[in-house]
Amino acid sequence: MLPDKLRRLVQLLARLPGVGEKTAQRFALFLVQQGDYATALGSELALLASSIGTCERCRGVSEIDAEGRFICHICRDTRRDSHLLCVVARIQDQIAIERSGAMRGRYFVLGRLLSPLDGIGPTDLPLTSLGQRIADEGVEEVIVATPPSVDGEATALLLAQEIEKLGVLVSRIASGVPHGGDLEFADQVTLGRAISQRRGISTTR
Amino acid sequence: MLPDKLRRLVQLLARLPGVGEKTAQRFALFLVQQGDYATALGSELALLASSIGTCERCRGVSEIDAEGRFICHICRDTRRDSHLLCVVARIQDQIAIERSGAMRGRYFVLGRLLSPLDGIGPTDLPLTSLGQRIADEGVEEVIVATPPSVDGEATALLLAQEIEKLGVLVSRIASGVPHGGDLEFADQVTLGRAISQRRGISTTR
Repeated sequence: MLPDKLRRLVQLLARLPGVGEKTAQRFALFLVQQGDYATALGSELALLASSIGTCERCRGVSEIDAEGRFICHICRDTRRDSHLLCVVARIQDQIAIERSGAMRGRYFVLGRLLSPLDGIGPTDLPLTSLGQRIADEGVEEVIVATPPSVDGEATALLLAQEIEKLGVLVSRIASGVPHGGDLEFADQVTLGRAISQRRGISTTR
Repeated sequence: MLPDKLRRLVQLLARLPGVGEKTAQRFALFLVQQGDYATALGSELALLASSIGTCERCRGVSEIDAEGRFICHICRDTRRDSHLLCVVARIQDQIAIERSGAMRGRYFVLGRLLSPLDGIGPTDLPLTSLGQRIADEGVEEVIVATPPSVDGEATALLLAQEIEKLGVLVSRIASGVPHGGDLEFADQVTLGRAISQRRGISTTR
């Protein structure tokens, strides 16, 4: 019942993550009714692939520079501690950590986690690029910030094995009850970790 | 922390209905990682405003024709019963009814409902266009398919008053317990309507 052009748009929009056909149709009708907005978004998207890409150093997201290279502003930032490298699974995780303001080093985005069930093994991870980066920049500590899930832990273990071979210190982000979280509603694994990974407290600092 | 260009894209995407900043960021990162897809969607959207618009007859959605006019395929379809006109609130409602296959006439999309709380009164509805359409096409029955909500019912009542003046039959879609619905979970108003608007049944047909 929709015009062909609109049906094609609905199909395209339904490829966005978490968007089904109903939502895609809602987006499409909104876009049709807001012509100027659709045009603005369209021109932004049409230029996206040529102006934004994967940072060649950290595999995060980067704008193209004057020489046509993709090096993100974090990798360029000379005030960053180049001895400290934080390995994350996804760009989203990098953004979340960056927002916390707690990371003064640089990043490396794996892009995926080990996942034997999905057939993703060690050779599917960019371990060579990671090793290269560690060597190139004289990294002294690698913080593995993969998520505290089964796949995330397996990946962390693999990374620890590989990185230790290079004689570099490897650490893992802490896992426990989140700030503001209610113990009553925390799951068993989280509570178990919070207890087994307890830290000493001192009133004298 | 995001490149400017990407931040602008996130802001644009966050204007889509029901999309907040987190979802917009997820869309944006997906689009960055799927460059070809972003380009395809971009060119589709850039041309949208010039090729898809509001049907000048039913105010539904229509592709542009060879003469540069917007007349949708339902309004063009000569096999449709032009004596029967279904008035809906939104294009989405038209699509839903069309999908049911139960409507053999044409449509008229109001675009909004009476809503005194939002300051939308009778003069904000396209009553003149509707009257014109009824007169032009010799419509004999108008089915008011506004939703069975407070605003939808108020709009239906107003339409009935206006259309009756033209000597045209006005009917309202039935409201009751939906097909496959469970009486236990139906709300009071729906159940009340289902009973007060009960129909006789006959085993002899």
